[in-house]
Amino acid sequence: MVKMVYMFDEGNSEMKEILGGKGANLAEMTNIGLPVPPGFTISAQACNDYYESGKRIQDEVKTEILESLNRLEETTGKKLGETDNPLLVSVRSGSVFSMPGMMDTVLNLGMNDETVEAVARLTGNPRFAYDSYRRFIQMFSNVVLEIDVFYFEQYLEKFREAKGYQNDPELEADDWKEVIAEYKKIVKKHKKEEFPQDPMQQLFLAINAVFDSWNNQRAIVYRQLNKIPGHYGTAVNIQSMVFGNMGNDSGTGVAFTRNPSTGEALLYGEYLINAQGEDVVAGIRTPNPIDTLKQDMPEVFEQFTEVCRQLERHYRDMQDIEFTVEHGQLFILQTRNGKRTAQATLRTAVEMVEEGVLTKQEAIGRVEPEQLNQLLHRRIDDRYQKDVLAKGLPASPGAATGRVVFDPDEAEHLSKEGINVILVRTETTPDDIHGIIAAQGVVTSRGGMTSHAAVVARGMGKSCICGCEAVKIDMQRKQFQVGETVIKQLDTITIDGGTGEIFAGEIPMIAPELSKEFELLLSWADQERSLDVRANADNPEDARKAVEFGAEGIGLCRTEHMFMDSERAPIVQQMILAETEEERIRSLDQLLPMQESDFEGIFEAMQGLPVTIRLLDPPLHEFLPDKEQLAVEVAEMQVTDSHSPGLAAKEKLLKRVRQLHESNPMLGHRGCRLGIIHPEIYEMQVTAIFNSAAKLQSKGISVIPEIMIPLVGHVNELRILRELVNETAVKVQEKTGIQIEYSVGTMIEVPRAALTADEIATEADFFSFGTNDLTQTTFGYSRDDAEGKFLKDYVDRKILPDNPFAVLDREGVGVLVKTGIKLGKQTRPDLKTGICGEHGGEKSSIEFCCQQGMDYVSCSPYRVPLARLAAAQAAIKHGLKRAEVTQK
Amino acid sequence: MVKMVYMFDEGNSEMKEILGGKGANLAEMTNIGLPVPPGFTISAQACNDYYESGKRIQDEVKTEILESLNRLEETTGKKLGETDNPLLVSVRSGSVFSMPGMMDTVLNLGMNDETVEAVARLTGNPRFAYDSYRRFIQMFSNVVLEIDVFYFEQYLEKFREAKGYQNDPELEADDWKEVIAEYKKIVKKHKKEEFPQDPMQQLFLAINAVFDSWNNQRAIVYRQLNKIPGHYGTAVNIQSMVFGNMGNDSGTGVAFTRNPSTGEALLYGEYLINAQGEDVVAGIRTPNPIDTLKQDMPEVFEQFTEVCRQLERHYRDMQDIEFTVEHGQLFILQTRNGKRTAQATLRTAVEMVEEGVLTKQEAIGRVEPEQLNQLLHRRIDDRYQKDVLAKGLPASPGAATGRVVFDPDEAEHLSKEGINVILVRTETTPDDIHGIIAAQGVVTSRGGMTSHAAVVARGMGKSCICGCEAVKIDMQRKQFQVGETVIKQLDTITIDGGTGEIFAGEIPMIAPELSKEFELLLSWADQERSLDVRANADNPEDARKAVEFGAEGIGLCRTEHMFMDSERAPIVQQMILAETEEERIRSLDQLLPMQESDFEGIFEAMQGLPVTIRLLDPPLHEFLPDKEQLAVEVAEMQVTDSHSPGLAAKEKLLKRVRQLHESNPMLGHRGCRLGIIHPEIYEMQVTAIFNSAAKLQSKGISVIPEIMIPLVGHVNELRILRELVNETAVKVQEKTGIQIEYSVGTMIEVPRAALTADEIATEADFFSFGTNDLTQTTFGYSRDDAEGKFLKDYVDRKILPDNPFAVLDREGVGVLVKTGIKLGKQTRPDLKTGICGEHGGEKSSIEFCCQQGMDYVSCSPYRVPLARLAAAQAAIKHGLKRAEVTQK
Repeated sequence: MVKMVYMFDEGNSEMKEILGGKGANLAEMTNIGLPVPPGFTISAQACNDYYESGKRIQDEVKTEILESLNRLEETTGKKLGETDNPLLVSVRSGSVFSMPGMMDTVLNLGMNDETVEAVARLTGNPRFAYDSYRRFIQMFSNVVLEIDVFYFEQYLEKFREAKGYQNDPELEADDWKEVIAEYKKIVKKHKKEEFPQDPMQQLFLAINAVFDSWNNQRAIVYRQLNKIPGHYGTAVNIQSMVFGNMGNDSGTGVAFTRNPSTGEALLYGEYLINAQGEDVVAGIRTPNPIDTLKQDMPEVFEQFTEVCRQLERHYRDMQDIEFTVEHGQLFILQTRNGKRTAQATLRTAVEMVEEGVLTKQEAIGRVEPEQLNQLLHRRIDDRYQKDVLAKGLPASPGAATGRVVFDPDEAEHLSKEGINVILVRTETTPDDIHGIIAAQGVVTSRGGMTSHAAVVARGMGKSCICGCEAVKIDMQRKQFQVGETVIKQLDTITIDGGTGEIFAGEIPMIAPELSKEFELLLSWADQERSLDVRANADNPEDARKAVEFGAEGIGLCRTEHMFMDSERAPIVQQMILAETEEERIRSLDQLLPMQESDFEGIFEAMQGLPVTIRLLDPPLHEFLPDKEQLAVEVAEMQVTDSHSPGLAAKEKLLKRVRQLHESNPMLGHRGCRLGIIHPEIYEMQVTAIFNSAAKLQSKGISVIPEIMIPLVGHVNELRILRELVNETAVKVQEKTGIQIEYSVGTMIEVPRAALTADEIATEADFFSFGTNDLTQTTFGYSRDDAEGKFLKDYVDRKILPDNPFAVLDREGVGVLVKTGIKLGKQTRPDLKTGICGEHGGEKSSIEFCCQQGMDYVSCSPYRVPLARLAAAQAAIKHGLKRAEVTQK
Repeated sequence: MVKMVYMFDEGNSEMKEILGGKGANLAEMTNIGLPVPPGFTISAQACNDYYESGKRIQDEVKTEILESLNRLEETTGKKLGETDNPLLVSVRSGSVFSMPGMMDTVLNLGMNDETVEAVARLTGNPRFAYDSYRRFIQMFSNVVLEIDVFYFEQYLEKFREAKGYQNDPELEADDWKEVIAEYKKIVKKHKKEEFPQDPMQQLFLAINAVFDSWNNQRAIVYRQLNKIPGHYGTAVNIQSMVFGNMGNDSGTGVAFTRNPSTGEALLYGEYLINAQGEDVVAGIRTPNPIDTLKQDMPEVFEQFTEVCRQLERHYRDMQDIEFTVEHGQLFILQTRNGKRTAQATLRTAVEMVEEGVLTKQEAIGRVEPEQLNQLLHRRIDDRYQKDVLAKGLPASPGAATGRVVFDPDEAEHLSKEGINVILVRTETTPDDIHGIIAAQGVVTSRGGMTSHAAVVARGMGKSCICGCEAVKIDMQRKQFQVGETVIKQLDTITIDGGTGEIFAGEIPMIAPELSKEFELLLSWADQERSLDVRANADNPEDARKAVEFGAEGIGLCRTEHMFMDSERAPIVQQMILAETEEERIRSLDQLLPMQESDFEGIFEAMQGLPVTIRLLDPPLHEFLPDKEQLAVEVAEMQVTDSHSPGLAAKEKLLKRVRQLHESNPMLGHRGCRLGIIHPEIYEMQVTAIFNSAAKLQSKGISVIPEIMIPLVGHVNELRILRELVNETAVKVQEKTGIQIEYSVGTMIEVPRAALTADEIATEADFFSFGTNDLTQTTFGYSRDDAEGKFLKDYVDRKILPDNPFAVLDREGVGVLVKTGIKLGKQTRPDLKTGICGEHGGEKSSIEFCCQQGMDYVSCSPYRVPLARLAAAQAAIKHGLKRAEVTQK
């Protein structure tokens, strides 16, 4: 059998898969000489073994545990359950991936009616001893015996009231004894047996409970959310206790080596004097900033600062450290890479390059592309007058507006109905996780910057304000009050997690500005990537935004959006309802100058960068009224208003709408099929493109239009429409005397196009993979229908690894993309290839595009920074250098 | 320059691409010593050259023509335009593929005011000479000068009336001279110049006209219909004239060496005494049966019979021969493979094997699989009393019912609206071709078995009755009369092209019986083919029909059709509208015994042959009322009847219909996606399959169910549902104690399934390529929408070579099929593969399946014979022997 239990000094940080993150770090810290309370780790393998053996710890493992316990007892000179010098230990979970607050912990294990006396005697502090014992009973009962903590707290509150105490520290040793007696009764009442007094029994029950917690509901939800596979299991760390609640020369705290919200390189954290660790994390008492430790215990603070520096250098990343001071002696209980906001990630990465700790490539790798989106969140517009309703701790930056809800279930429910909500809670616990996911932002009235709400919200990039004590929540009435102001459930508020400010109502927001670290890191990324990054933009505003975010062109300009403008819709309808080509051309003549001005604006914004314009793509009936609604209107008029002169027109419209109706419009008369049957529409569009290009060119602004034909499935379609483009180009050139450089290409968005790409490439200057439609046709999924009807279930049940509309399916769709590129380049080695589906802004899909040797990805303007970074990471990972001469 | 003009004795039958079919045959006949009037052929290449030179005959070609003319003049001792002994020639088109009546011909060329005198003198028959001259003027003016023949006939009719003549033969030489003078005036009036007198000018004008006729409207339509490419061009045959209208020892006729309607090995044809060839073909005079030639000219008849035998042996096929007798001397003007009905094709092929002329393999190759469908046409049910309205010539067998129309445009128009029509005409011409295509059948009141209508209808396998003189058509009143009975336009009639009988109204029809030749040929085919042929059948009746037609199993049993039965529909609706799983299961419990009886009937009919059953495939809302209609009903009720108790129920139904509505149902929640989300439905179906199999097996009837999961795109879908099938099988086995052998496979009908077939094959015993849906997804076409909106245009404009739903697209869809088989067999070498889309009953697609090494094709029962034959032809063509041990 493999070794399943390791003393801390037997492991190191490389052994995460075996020891879990916490265990490996405890081992690592022990080995580099930090003051870590001694202990040992039961491996994650033992957890899997536990499940495989039907939730039973096998004898061999038990033996190993007992041997390690012996060694711990030797090291500390204490012994579990011994009344001379009893050993007290913590039992904590620790999996490969950090899952903060997701799993259970038991502290002070080893306490019983006898050892408590020994502790009282040895510490000379009976109050501390009995307080610790009652904490142990409460925690053990909750975590291991599964008795709701409510029963204990309810009693404790009554007890305090009866005695007239305000706070726990006022309770004396005898008070705690009384409480302990009642606690034991509560246990007896719920479990029909006594609270276990045998420390060895306590230990194994606790170990089992930690193993069990791997599969509790909130751990499963957290893993799903973070895509952590279930097979890892959790390790268990048994560590000798140190006590921060031994008096005013003791304390406990949590600190980040840099500010996790901004990334500023200043120690950032909180501590509580005379407290145990969970008091800080649980957010029950609002702690003091770490700086106060400097005043309270200057030597300890200096030692701690040095430890932080040492740990950051050692791990080459910002650390999140738990420490305890026992009678002035510093102990490090845990260190891990600190969870932080995108802004902090960026600043830390960039500054660590400047400090010489990281290379630029490493810094690029440190930032998760998806995180960048947080930096592109809107913030509150300063220009608007606004009254701050209340101010809390700025726990996670970003602004958010939504309706107030107090219950996480309610938050989830409303969010599913498309309503934006802000979750307001006294404090949050791991049970609230689904409500935090559903909300736009979170406000708590208690807890600090390292409280559960703050940590989770920062991890999700959600706006969060913590410890806003001015907010008085009344759960009964479903409202909160700030001074005189009452905010009821479903009232709208706006919060700014960067300042901690809460406002009543909705406040206008503005686009974010990018920090200098952001620009710097992306400029490094631009040096590395092999892919160009373009944006999908349909109007001058989006085009400008795209350029601002670093787009190197427009990869997809959808002309149909220009048709949907409310002014134009009637003309577009006329065009569609035309019964002769002449009538249709009349409407198109009206649309021509409008389209011209659209393109002019876009070309101007793009300052000579290439613009790929897709000719009209959707089926015509999308521009017409809804068939069912129209039929109902006609039926109603026929009954109530049959002489109305409007009826005949409506009937005629209905008839035409029915003619144009399709059973599967996604696969119907759209894209190039429209262009082939009604060439006059494409002719108008192409004329508009060349006219506006000529106009700008005559003003000295260079323009590179790339005309893209949608939905080609057979080379003949492209051949015919390419001719149409060329003929139109000649006409415009003859009229204006200005020659425009342009290219003609096609979307590859049906499987047949990919499979016959060698033929299609004979007529194409470029391919743009439209992986939205290609995914629809390759899977045979209508996205609208699939996402509403079965796709969520498929992903939840792991029938599919991901939603293929979010993450490009490499096995199916990817094979077609690969085939398309290979065959296309066979015919035309200089064929330009890119992607313009939503996948163009998703990390894993971008990596795939990079591996396929594409020239560019195109995504929405707000995802351009993400794509630049992801492209750099992919290029670094696969050793694909940017070509010396780019396409730009 | 290549040689462009060939004397008949310089060519042979292999040179069709150069000389055209007629020219090559004239050459061949000349060389085997038959009495062919001498002449030469201008090659089809010269036609292309003519078009390439801007419709001009190049000088080199002119020179060759003149040289050949010289040689013809030497051979015949006559000279074009010479008044001593003038040469008269015919000028006829002749392309590679026979296009009967499609192109133009000029006879008697060389006639002018002077040569007509010579002919009169030399023949001693001035009446003949002037008649021939006026025929020439009329024909030349029509074909070459493009003057409508109407003007000539109008005048001739007036002339006859004035003179009191009934028929043309009554006109004397002087009469014809008068007519000629007037004819020349008509020409002058229309063309502003004289009728050309120079025979050399006549010749070249006529050659140009034949070349031009290659691209006239009716030739283009015929080529489209018959898929003849336009690049072949037509050759021109210049042949010295012989005359069947030289008196009662002369005549002209057309004969088939066997009966083209039944295949009976008896000379079959018609001739007219004292007539020129076009009199027979054009159907203007109804000719005499060929047998009468035996009485009129016994020696000529015997010689002709011998020529027929010789030609059939030489060409190894039934011949269609044109001949002329001039003063008792037989001339053969043309021979070609005779167009015939499917029945005749079959009988001829089979009898020629029996005669030792053909091998069995050759006989198999002689029958066009698509033709077999003609033999499966329904015929009139003899059991019904019926009154024959009229009787004509049985020109093309098969029965048809439809509404009477007299105009081909009208026929086309109504047929597009889905109305079955019978085209009734005095006679048909090549200009009526679109009307014949559109009609279910054709009736003519004039013309014989070789008239235009008869030949064309037989070629198309359409029912046709010719020369039904009892039918008096009144175009003015749009009606016809038979005795006292008046049949108006749009009245329904029924015709039987096998008997020549016409009936008023609609007459019940019955399924066809198969001839012994049919059975014999298919039994030979069965020896050759490598593919099994199965049928698509959803009920016991279809299953029995399939077995009768030789199906070796059911390749696709669609269970949804069983759901659509009117009795079951309400239960199915309940099942769908169920809001809980329990409610749904209650409805399913009601459906279970019904499905059981369905499967029982089918298994019983299949007598132990394998039955592939596809579990429920279509989206559920297909079983619900139409959304729009329901919305209108609800709206109307809300206005007029808002207190109706039915309203609430309808509103609820509408809500659910809206919930289930999909934007693209083809790509929506259907197929295995239903089975995954609602496993109880599939469970019911699978239970029904195994219950009924167990029941039959206990009666000693063996059953081989193959359970097929539709629309699989990822192996996990199949894995889950295969488990469901296996678990259900175990349950039934435990309940009944009977073990059923079964297999589980999947449709391959979305591209992703083909692309990941290696993974999918891990869970599949067989693949059935559903090429209907695979074509939809590969092209991104919704068949319903595409065929109505753009596909016809695509095929007409040759953007696509064929409708891909009719003929499998080898370049795109075919690549996926090939990939699917290759990857599937990589994983599982014994994987069974087949096809069950409509392509399984189409010749070219079957050939493709054969080449891919599939195990079977499956098609509708009526196409099984076709598939058996096509599979044999493909196996012979590609040398793919039937494996010793088949899957059966």
